[in-house]
Amino acid sequence: MREVFQQELREVQDRLVEISSLVEGSIENAVRAFNDSNVALAETVIEDDTKIDALAAELDEHAIQILARQAPVARDLRIVVSALRISASLERMGDIAEHIAQLARYRFPDKVVPTSLRATFAEMGRLDVEVAHKLTELLRTEDTRLAEEIRDEDDKIDALHLSVFDKVLGETWKGGAAETVDATLASRYHERFGDHAVSIAKKVRYLATGDWAPQRAGA
Amino acid sequence: MREVFQQELREVQDRLVEISSLVEGSIENAVRAFNDSNVALAETVIEDDTKIDALAAELDEHAIQILARQAPVARDLRIVVSALRISASLERMGDIAEHIAQLARYRFPDKVVPTSLRATFAEMGRLDVEVAHKLTELLRTEDTRLAEEIRDEDDKIDALHLSVFDKVLGETWKGGAAETVDATLASRYHERFGDHAVSIAKKVRYLATGDWAPQRAGA
Repeated sequence: MREVFQQELREVQDRLVEISSLVEGSIENAVRAFNDSNVALAETVIEDDTKIDALAAELDEHAIQILARQAPVARDLRIVVSALRISASLERMGDIAEHIAQLARYRFPDKVVPTSLRATFAEMGRLDVEVAHKLTELLRTEDTRLAEEIRDEDDKIDALHLSVFDKVLGETWKGGAAETVDATLASRYHERFGDHAVSIAKKVRYLATGDWAPQRAGA
Repeated sequence: MREVFQQELREVQDRLVEISSLVEGSIENAVRAFNDSNVALAETVIEDDTKIDALAAELDEHAIQILARQAPVARDLRIVVSALRISASLERMGDIAEHIAQLARYRFPDKVVPTSLRATFAEMGRLDVEVAHKLTELLRTEDTRLAEEIRDEDDKIDALHLSVFDKVLGETWKGGAAETVDATLASRYHERFGDHAVSIAKKVRYLATGDWAPQRAGA
């Protein structure tokens, strides 16, 4: 019985890694669609979100079945409950990738943000992909050093997010209202990936070490 | 044993109603702080978010203890798992109320949005408070007609959210970049309450009827 249960927990983990890996691919495609105005890639992200939603729903059903059949307690129970929460965050990251892809599609053939902001968004996008990749690796390996790295990269993403507002509100900003709206929403979406990744990383770290770092406000 | 369990489930429900009621109060205070530039009320919202977070964490701990001690199955298990998800959504609604309060505080003594948008935001805020109130009642009574009403009001909130962009992108918009950024973020926050309420209402409706309405994209 115990062995069956360990096998089932491994399957939960494998499914989380699979979903995280898909989310990572979607974020990569979304930021590329956004930076390069690639409308075909944007369509792919929008289609893939349905797949991510379905896999997250399947994982949730699987986790609930484990709770019903195995009635886990203590750490095992917390692993299953955490899996449900992590799947909800991953699903939300997929939604946000879709929002970014939709911005790229609406503005096609124009780019979403003007030249003066492109380097900033390229860097935010690069960090988002890196954070998503580290998240997949963290879920696969439970190497908690990755959780620290994710937190550090989230700080960099937050700083870039603020720098977008500095630019938009600065004297050299030449964008009209449409560019300002787009830059605001796009920056907010790019920034949210990091928050979700930090929140997931905290859960994995807690499971691996039993040490629950205090929540940061608004995370 | 069964009676103890039913008592514990009722306690979970009572706690959800309590948190929802606090969130409702925070949304009411946040939209009032926002519309009237009331900085003291904004501070209250920001403080109350800590309380909401703590109560949600306590409820989660309580739900996990029930899973460990009672090993519920079937519908009982789904009630407990849904409670964990509902508490996560309520906690997030508290965060968003805090974001709106922060906007009001940053701009004080100015108002966050210019005169031309005030009626729209007042109406969105009124609907947000109404939706939050109906959510508390839905959690208390499980009257699924409230779930339908919440969905209808969310549609109205979405329409108002789009109308903000129409105004900001229209020819009569006189706001500068700062007003445009603020209106964009404020509208997005006002709109998110409805999404979370619809998502919670779907879970309650599912538990009450066993009928899982298809998810709407981006909800």
